[in-house]
Amino acid sequence: MTLEGRFDEDAGVVRVGSDARQRYHDSRGYGYPLEGNEIALAPIEAAHLLYRGDLEAVVDDASGDRLDFRAFAAREPGEKFGVRFLVYADLRSRGFYLSPAAEPWVPDPPEGAVDFAVFPRGKGPRDGETEYALRVIGERTDVPASDLEDAVLAVVDEESEITYFDVSSRDPSGSSTPDAALPDGCEADLLADRVVVWEPPLSLYETTFYGQPLEGREYDEPTLQLSLLEAAFLAERGAIDLDPETVRDRGHEVEGERFARRLAVYTELRERDVVPKTGYKFGADFRTYADVESVENLGHSELLLRVHPDDHVFEPRDLALDVRLAHGVRKTMVFALVDGAGGIDWWSVERLTP
Amino acid sequence: MTLEGRFDEDAGVVRVGSDARQRYHDSRGYGYPLEGNEIALAPIEAAHLLYRGDLEAVVDDASGDRLDFRAFAAREPGEKFGVRFLVYADLRSRGFYLSPAAEPWVPDPPEGAVDFAVFPRGKGPRDGETEYALRVIGERTDVPASDLEDAVLAVVDEESEITYFDVSSRDPSGSSTPDAALPDGCEADLLADRVVVWEPPLSLYETTFYGQPLEGREYDEPTLQLSLLEAAFLAERGAIDLDPETVRDRGHEVEGERFARRLAVYTELRERDVVPKTGYKFGADFRTYADVESVENLGHSELLLRVHPDDHVFEPRDLALDVRLAHGVRKTMVFALVDGAGGIDWWSVERLTP
Repeated sequence: MTLEGRFDEDAGVVRVGSDARQRYHDSRGYGYPLEGNEIALAPIEAAHLLYRGDLEAVVDDASGDRLDFRAFAAREPGEKFGVRFLVYADLRSRGFYLSPAAEPWVPDPPEGAVDFAVFPRGKGPRDGETEYALRVIGERTDVPASDLEDAVLAVVDEESEITYFDVSSRDPSGSSTPDAALPDGCEADLLADRVVVWEPPLSLYETTFYGQPLEGREYDEPTLQLSLLEAAFLAERGAIDLDPETVRDRGHEVEGERFARRLAVYTELRERDVVPKTGYKFGADFRTYADVESVENLGHSELLLRVHPDDHVFEPRDLALDVRLAHGVRKTMVFALVDGAGGIDWWSVERLTP
Repeated sequence: MTLEGRFDEDAGVVRVGSDARQRYHDSRGYGYPLEGNEIALAPIEAAHLLYRGDLEAVVDDASGDRLDFRAFAAREPGEKFGVRFLVYADLRSRGFYLSPAAEPWVPDPPEGAVDFAVFPRGKGPRDGETEYALRVIGERTDVPASDLEDAVLAVVDEESEITYFDVSSRDPSGSSTPDAALPDGCEADLLADRVVVWEPPLSLYETTFYGQPLEGREYDEPTLQLSLLEAAFLAERGAIDLDPETVRDRGHEVEGERFARRLAVYTELRERDVVPKTGYKFGADFRTYADVESVENLGHSELLLRVHPDDHVFEPRDLALDVRLAHGVRKTMVFALVDGAGGIDWWSVERLTP
């Protein structure tokens, strides 16, 4: 015997009586209990039960209309109904129980702009554990950088496919040659968009991994090419004999305001003993190495880093692109958000298969 | 015995006498012959000969200074000297002869904003064959879409690594079920950002590959979800019972002016018997299938497509990202540039290892 629900649009819930409490809530984690045997379902939950044939219909309290899945869905009850329903159905089909991230569905809902609390497999809304705090958006929904939080972002594309992103606050650190001495006043030439150091000590590249050697010279010490960023950092510390302000000005000419932001991030990473190198080939700002003992024994870089101002607004499509590329080259995508005073927030975004 | 050259800055060439013609021009493809035994070298070519130790010095005609590689390079003779030198040296080290793309270095230089004519391995400037028409830019140089041409783009990043892109004009076509009949006036509901067709004929998805079925229904014909783009296209042809203008307006609400551009490209591809589906997971606009007989026997999509207005300006970093991702998933990146009248230019960009 299938049941019917009653849609109380003012309260925003669908009430179901009879043995709904045992069948839907206790054993399958839908809704929350009301007095007597009744349970209250969020429209999403009611839609799912209709979709699966567990509820025969939902009767609209106000009009008396009997709504099947099609009619109920067409009314789009609640905000972002379509995309939220698709994610709800997907996670259910993967064997998770999940509830709207609100009381009284869950006793202690996750904070922030969270749509669902997803429970560990085998657990439900009353067990007190959340596996994922989940936010659902369509692929056209902008995400301001200030909205990022430790949570899972489910993006529903225009074909109703869902990509899950694990967003985590991050604190990069490393152990790359913290005590290696920088040289003092090496001769360097500032070219249009890069710097050349003609006779650097070998350790500048081989141990502390600054620059890139130019190949095929007939000298003992390889000529090193530095990016403007590396040159600005080294000039500030007197390691090369260029005026730091001149180098920074050149950086600004070539790259605009991005240069100062990237320099702030470069500097912070070096001070955390992480080695940043250019990420151009990956379409990122940096690739970073946490533990460089020597270039000879260099492992693979672990992070791809993209630098944004803190008022940046992410388009989900660009997130998909960055994260997918990072995944394809076995690295983690990290975003460094820089505020006006040079303060930096770090966020990793990784693909997640729930 | 190594030779010296004379730098005639007004003419912009370095002249070398003695047996330079035989040693550098005839056997190794540098420069072009002058009267007598002399040859004229472009600054790039002279710099390379200095770099390799083949020229001992270049004497500045005007001042009498004797310049070694370092001094000559520091003067940055010619535009974009640094990045052009790095590419010149890289291609030489890969076994190519190449010349400035100008007379009298080559008899019939490639047209357009081309820096070098690169000859097939084993050939030189007098053999009349060009392997690559090569343009060199730094990673910070913007490339307006109107500047795209059939050529190779060499992008030098801030660490002096070079990425080569093969840019080609393109003409997508396919053979996907050109005669399959579309249905007539299928019932459909317009939701916030997508369309649902409740009881479509099976062929709409299975043969002509529109939409995406929603899983897990108890009906014979699977409910289909359509993107707003697909729905606009089908509504225009009367295949679904929605007003096309209403769907297009919704598309514009959700996606802004991008919607009309994407719809123009979608329509053109369908009319060329190519099937476009969403490219969201790859960070692109579309992935396309040229030969869809049925969804059951679906191969992999061949192209990733990104739609831009024709006044778009490419940043090399975004090119690197798009092309690298496409390469990683074994697809070709294509850009569709749409003008104000809906006309479309197609360009593929692929990584090249010379």
